[in-house]
Amino acid sequence: MSAFEKLVKHSKKVANFEHLYAISSWDQSSIMPSGGAEARGAAMAELSVHIHQMRTQPQLEEWFESAAQENLDQTQSAILREMKQQWQQATVLPDEFVEAKSLAGSKCEHAWREQRTQNDWQGFIANWQEVVTLSQQEAQIRAEVAGTTPYDAMLNLYEPGTTSESLDKVFTDVKSWLPDMIDQAIEKQASEPVIEPKGHYPAQAQKALGKEVMKLLQFDFSHGRLDESVHPFCGGVPTDVRITTRYDESEFVQSIMGIVHETGHARYEQGLPRALAGTRAGEARSMGVHESQSLFFEMQLGRNPHFIAHLAKLIKGRFDDSTEGLFDVANLQKVYTRVKKDFIRIDADELTYPAHVILRYEIERDLMNGKITCADVPELWDEKMQGYLGLSTKGNYRQGCMQDIHWTDGSFGYFPSYTLGAMYAAQFMAAMRKTIDVESVLDSGDLSPIFTWLNDHVWSKGSLYTTNEILTQATGEVLNPAFFKQHLKSRYL
Amino acid sequence: MSAFEKLVKHSKKVANFEHLYAISSWDQSSIMPSGGAEARGAAMAELSVHIHQMRTQPQLEEWFESAAQENLDQTQSAILREMKQQWQQATVLPDEFVEAKSLAGSKCEHAWREQRTQNDWQGFIANWQEVVTLSQQEAQIRAEVAGTTPYDAMLNLYEPGTTSESLDKVFTDVKSWLPDMIDQAIEKQASEPVIEPKGHYPAQAQKALGKEVMKLLQFDFSHGRLDESVHPFCGGVPTDVRITTRYDESEFVQSIMGIVHETGHARYEQGLPRALAGTRAGEARSMGVHESQSLFFEMQLGRNPHFIAHLAKLIKGRFDDSTEGLFDVANLQKVYTRVKKDFIRIDADELTYPAHVILRYEIERDLMNGKITCADVPELWDEKMQGYLGLSTKGNYRQGCMQDIHWTDGSFGYFPSYTLGAMYAAQFMAAMRKTIDVESVLDSGDLSPIFTWLNDHVWSKGSLYTTNEILTQATGEVLNPAFFKQHLKSRYL
Ligand SMILES: [Zn+2]
Ligand SMILES: [Zn+2]
Repeated sequence: MSAFEKLVKHSKKVANFEHLYAISSWDQSSIMPSGGAEARGAAMAELSVHIHQMRTQPQLEEWFESAAQENLDQTQSAILREMKQQWQQATVLPDEFVEAKSLAGSKCEHAWREQRTQNDWQGFIANWQEVVTLSQQEAQIRAEVAGTTPYDAMLNLYEPGTTSESLDKVFTDVKSWLPDMIDQAIEKQASEPVIEPKGHYPAQAQKALGKEVMKLLQFDFSHGRLDESVHPFCGGVPTDVRITTRYDESEFVQSIMGIVHETGHARYEQGLPRALAGTRAGEARSMGVHESQSLFFEMQLGRNPHFIAHLAKLIKGRFDDSTEGLFDVANLQKVYTRVKKDFIRIDADELTYPAHVILRYEIERDLMNGKITCADVPELWDEKMQGYLGLSTKGNYRQGCMQDIHWTDGSFGYFPSYTLGAMYAAQFMAAMRKTIDVESVLDSGDLSPIFTWLNDHVWSKGSLYTTNEILTQATGEVLNPAFFKQHLKSRYL
Repeated sequence: MSAFEKLVKHSKKVANFEHLYAISSWDQSSIMPSGGAEARGAAMAELSVHIHQMRTQPQLEEWFESAAQENLDQTQSAILREMKQQWQQATVLPDEFVEAKSLAGSKCEHAWREQRTQNDWQGFIANWQEVVTLSQQEAQIRAEVAGTTPYDAMLNLYEPGTTSESLDKVFTDVKSWLPDMIDQAIEKQASEPVIEPKGHYPAQAQKALGKEVMKLLQFDFSHGRLDESVHPFCGGVPTDVRITTRYDESEFVQSIMGIVHETGHARYEQGLPRALAGTRAGEARSMGVHESQSLFFEMQLGRNPHFIAHLAKLIKGRFDDSTEGLFDVANLQKVYTRVKKDFIRIDADELTYPAHVILRYEIERDLMNGKITCADVPELWDEKMQGYLGLSTKGNYRQGCMQDIHWTDGSFGYFPSYTLGAMYAAQFMAAMRKTIDVESVLDSGDLSPIFTWLNDHVWSKGSLYTTNEILTQATGEVLNPAFFKQHLKSRYL
């Protein structure tokens, strides 16, 4: 057996354990009874350690060295590249460091759940300082190996190949037109009345509606399920993708579009190359590309009036609400595209969302690069929030820098993925339009041509190519924020 | 750390992996989409190998030797005894042998699913011979280590401490009165008309009813769930017990009593001693004792008219069936205690069930001890079926010796557990009646005293004591079939 073959065999073995971790994790977050939590936590921690040990076992170094000398074809080289990158990321930190960071993160996150409701910044920073210090050290260690800035080394965990140099450029561009566009959209919408849902929409009916929408989006139910959880997510494994949503019976808008979003994630997973299953190259490219697929579904398709026409048809007769005009396509379209300057990222609309992300990006970049300290964060937050959205968060930590879980547990570098995903999605759509009449396809009710395009250009490529390669092969160029701007402009102005 | 402590730590580590195996296995059998089967099978096989490797790792031998010299209290000694027994059972067979038997079993079982429907005995025996030969070898190897007969070594995998010498005595007693009792019961029931359900009973309503019944039985929903599967079972882990049932919309009788049965298994698991979790001593005593709890719920409680009165109340108004008298307590009682001589064990009633088990016991005992061959089985089956139930299975393999999965995959020694469980249950009930007025407790609707008794005498003991010790502590004597006879007599004659 060649060293490359040994590595692939080992990778598939690890993947088997990761499969069970994914399913247990889905179960934990969706259907596990509360009393099962402690024992499950212990079991999953044990499996986690086992997976880490396998991923860092000593023979791997020798196998990687030998494999580099072997005669590999293009696909094999890509598999090796991805396996090696994953191995380096897993081995670069000492085990005790990983444990210390995990402990500090858990402690901070646990306390944060209460501290946030109390607006207790002093209490929070007492724990958070340790999380930030350890994350800075992690960034430093990773940066030395990768030859990048500390922040870029963290960024590469979620969107490999992206640098803050390129992000700075892209986000500077966005910042140059976004605040104005937000103001104009709000002004325009002020004269357009919208009817918001105000009735009782039973969860059972929302669920049945959700499954119809998933069918329209060609979710493969023989390789996946829809369930419920407090925080919607897409989990499981490519052959068995588990998406979840949450039903609020006072409205139906969020659960349905949440399902559209998660179905985007799910179809990416279901479309990954089966032949490469168990190797990193058979997995999704990055968090940013993953989000590009969910946002393609949610924003590019889901908020297209020709898609909303299907929603309207599927909704009609399902709910006992006779409010005149509520279920009309034009009104649903307005409901789904309302713009509002507000404090909370996860509730933000499509147009203000990038402002929330850029703000976080600028702060976490400087924090990881040691240019600012934890204590500087609230003031910077307030300043940027004023600048991008005209809102003050002075003394309002709860709705300010304490609102997200990402920093709390030390996931610095994650935030840009959201807006990168939105921009990739707009760019994919612009490219798709060169060969596909998207509105006619939507009208036909058989969305296959759209999915075939996504499958050919994104899903089936797994991680065989870099994000830039995928973008270039699919759209003819690397990330270009002009497509995103054009998309927002045509929708909101 | 003492050797004993090392063993306990190791045991808890293995238990963490077994936890994840149990949950994945439940998922696989109940909610996994069909397309997930192949990858899940591979993942679980990988975990299975890992668990076996941990259970047989070389340091254990030294730890067991040292621990035997350590000063242990009574509980620790019991923990050590159980860990050692499990270790010996895991290590006694060479890995290649285990694999060969597993392969032969899978092959035979797979082909059997089709061969059974075709009544294809010749095809079946071609595969089955290998399973039997390997099982005989397994029995031989285990017998040499345990110092027992080959069959008794197999029996000990499911009901440790039981010998065929004691079983022969008990079953000879049962055979001396059972066939007559069956005939008398059938004759008596012939003059008692019964109204069978014939309407449409929606699965949703059956499920809601089932949950009410589980509440009456004080199933702890914060430590468990009710779901659906093709073959009802009780899975999961003690902190998160997953029971399943199956809904046939043409009747409601089976799903409800199936739920009562599985709830008995579940409450045993939920009642196991938490302080011993992760050690073998914290697990259920044996298959026989497990079945004694499910059958205590199903037969001792579930078919008691004072319990059926609750069922009748819970059923009323739930189904759209106006058949006069169907839901009356007296009629439901008849529905649930109808006796019929028939071919299939899993469909058998309480009274004829032991005949099915004794027949199998006598054949598998002689097969494992090498006194008969595979080719002898159909004729022996027919002869015993004629003797115990007056039915001929000549040429009818499908409803004869090919009906069960147990022999197909080599689980020889399992069958007696069913009837041992039924007999233990009757003996527990007789002992309980010395201090508890069971009917008054049932009438009150708060069944706590019954469950407290079971918890004190069975559940909380885990495997700290042998089956005989548990029986003696709870009832004052070892297994005595007179209690079972008395129970059946008072119910059916
Ligand atoms: Zn997403
Ligand atoms: Zn059972």
